[in-house]
Amino acid sequence: MRKGEVTRQHIIEEAAALFNRRGYAGCALREIMEATGLEKGGIYRHFNSKEEIAAEAFDYAWGQAFAVRTRGMDEIDDAVDKLRRHVANFTEKTGFPGGCPVLNTSTDADDGNPVLRERVRGAVKRWRAMIVGIVEQGQAAGSVRETFDPQEVATRIIGALEGAVMLARIERNQAVLHSTHALLDSWLLSEVRASGKVRRG
Amino acid sequence: MRKGEVTRQHIIEEAAALFNRRGYAGCALREIMEATGLEKGGIYRHFNSKEEIAAEAFDYAWGQAFAVRTRGMDEIDDAVDKLRRHVANFTEKTGFPGGCPVLNTSTDADDGNPVLRERVRGAVKRWRAMIVGIVEQGQAAGSVRETFDPQEVATRIIGALEGAVMLARIERNQAVLHSTHALLDSWLLSEVRASGKVRRG
Ligand SMILES: [Mg+2]
Ligand SMILES: [Mg+2]
Repeated sequence: MRKGEVTRQHIIEEAAALFNRRGYAGCALREIMEATGLEKGGIYRHFNSKEEIAAEAFDYAWGQAFAVRTRGMDEIDDAVDKLRRHVANFTEKTGFPGGCPVLNTSTDADDGNPVLRERVRGAVKRWRAMIVGIVEQGQAAGSVRETFDPQEVATRIIGALEGAVMLARIERNQAVLHSTHALLDSWLLSEVRASGKVRRG
Repeated sequence: MRKGEVTRQHIIEEAAALFNRRGYAGCALREIMEATGLEKGGIYRHFNSKEEIAAEAFDYAWGQAFAVRTRGMDEIDDAVDKLRRHVANFTEKTGFPGGCPVLNTSTDADDGNPVLRERVRGAVKRWRAMIVGIVEQGQAAGSVRETFDPQEVATRIIGALEGAVMLARIERNQAVLHSTHALLDSWLLSEVRASGKVRRG
């Protein structure tokens, strides 16, 4: 990486930790200056606006969180086991400091900041598509019940996980994540997984 | 209501609509002045700080949303039907403009603003207690399966509903709310409700 790229990445990483905890409006440029040790001019040499910093910071934070939450899935063949690993990763590991970047940034940007909102929409779209793809692959292979709408499986998983993160953080209670894990896992095993009888593939 | 109280309530209501959409840091006092038609001094005659306005605004917004979401529940005797009404209210009606005040304010305040965070914690605590109370009442009456932990039923319902609101708002897709409604409703009917066989009351 060239020196300019190193500095740009440094700004993105420091800003991501601030924005994910405090929101777009809650994080002043001055705080990014303090965290990076750079002057205003040193920051705006790399970005056109605070909005651009926040958008890049979101992509970075979500990239980090998504990597943690998809870890090990590629090595698993079975669709239901892939989804179980995803749920386990999400509920057992910290994706990024300050809570889920999608949860934080979507509630922050859904009524404003169109640039940031589009970044979050894109992230959710890709996340949903990943789950839908796994469900479809499982249905093609006969390991996932055909009665399930892949989009609805994605809605159930993403909704339950994000709602659980919200509750765990405001209640300061990790038990919410464990019980959400247990509930989704037993649903995946007992309902989503095709049993011998319902297998039609 | 005395004139001072009318003005105070007017400020709370206007501020609630702004804070719920834009967050604590995202809403400047100037905007509350514009929305209420009051000068700074006219606002701070009724409140000690922006924090106090935001805390009262949250209580107001959540009070409005909770009233919509609990509508009609008192007239229903059966515990499972009470919970079904709650889920239907939540997914079919708009609780408050800008999305769920608990979702917005908890992600906004969970890493800062201790006053606001305590208000949200209190709201979640009472919401959870309401669901737990209904489940316990149902278990005592034999209409809810005893195998269910009332706290986990509350986690599942609140988590699924809040996650669905997040998705519906960022994806701009109401179908997410409908499918979450259908999923929770069928779970309440087919699993939470005690069937004749498992009834042990
Ligand atoms: Mg919002
Ligand atoms: Mg937060």
